[in-house]
Amino acid sequence: MPKIVDHEARRREIAEALWRITRSDGWEAITLRGVAAEAGVSMGLVQHYFRSKDEMLLFALEIIVEDVRAEIRKVVAALPEPRTPRQLVTAVMMELVPRDRPNETETAAVFMRRLQLRPESLARLGAGQPQPDLRGMVADQIRLARPDIDADLAASGLIALLEGLLFVVVTGQQSSATARAVMAAQLDYVFN
Amino acid sequence: MPKIVDHEARRREIAEALWRITRSDGWEAITLRGVAAEAGVSMGLVQHYFRSKDEMLLFALEIIVEDVRAEIRKVVAALPEPRTPRQLVTAVMMELVPRDRPNETETAAVFMRRLQLRPESLARLGAGQPQPDLRGMVADQIRLARPDIDADLAASGLIALLEGLLFVVVTGQQSSATARAVMAAQLDYVFN
Repeated sequence: MPKIVDHEARRREIAEALWRITRSDGWEAITLRGVAAEAGVSMGLVQHYFRSKDEMLLFALEIIVEDVRAEIRKVVAALPEPRTPRQLVTAVMMELVPRDRPNETETAAVFMRRLQLRPESLARLGAGQPQPDLRGMVADQIRLARPDIDADLAASGLIALLEGLLFVVVTGQQSSATARAVMAAQLDYVFN
Repeated sequence: MPKIVDHEARRREIAEALWRITRSDGWEAITLRGVAAEAGVSMGLVQHYFRSKDEMLLFALEIIVEDVRAEIRKVVAALPEPRTPRQLVTAVMMELVPRDRPNETETAAVFMRRLQLRPESLARLGAGQPQPDLRGMVADQIRLARPDIDADLAASGLIALLEGLLFVVVTGQQSSATARAVMAAQLDYVFN
């Protein structure tokens, strides 16, 4: 089905152009026209795929969420069997701590998540957030390894810590190395 | 010096009008004209105090930082003497975990900090961030109580966790009660 593949590839190219603009000029700079120019396609083509700026933003967010999920599946699949809950959670959380020079998409994703703080954006785009699945998975694994602690609370702590580390690394307050060390210490604490 | 007091009060009223607009309509909605209308003063008066939108935003951020510092001083002063490092750090961190219905200023502060992610805003406004002092103070206290652990790393973890908790509470992903329990568990871990 080459036609369908092309459609998906085209939509993705447009979303990636949107991320490049967000990264260099900020979210306010995004327009259908600007994204078309950045993607090297016509305004009409962009409008063929996305009826509005919001529809385009929603798709761009979904791409990020899907990319993160795919990355996690890959990391998990690469673990040796049998794997412990600790190995699984460590692999996933360490994958999600941002690098020192986060790539375009990572940085843009942080921008976008922060911008969801606008109440009307939150209501519209909140459905695309990856956190609930992640929190549930992490809590389940902690429950298996540590029946003696409050697994939901520990999972909430890990997710909140991850959110905070994303923020401090992307704003340059902390290096990725420190962020990784902080996350490793937290995993030690939870699974000790 | 009633004149000076009036000036400060007027500048603060204008900044508070700015926060109300940010909260209801988002950062993009801020204009000198809109803030003047919200504050119930003339456009000319706003321009007398702030030559540009950026100058006004910077002052509004500084007010938040100063309010947070004042709140922390108050909480610390209310502690019984002699106080332990753990009591001091706990009082401060628990003060900074947001309430379930964060007040206008708290919410606006989170918006603003997130919006600093725009690279040009970060460069301009980054100087106003309260984190470095807080991190140093927390690390010093941890060093006193726990010479056996990496105090800088533990302090970085607490600050990152606080950032993340701010985000998850203000976006409604977690209740303030959960955020407080997460922070309390973290303090147990660090000072145990």
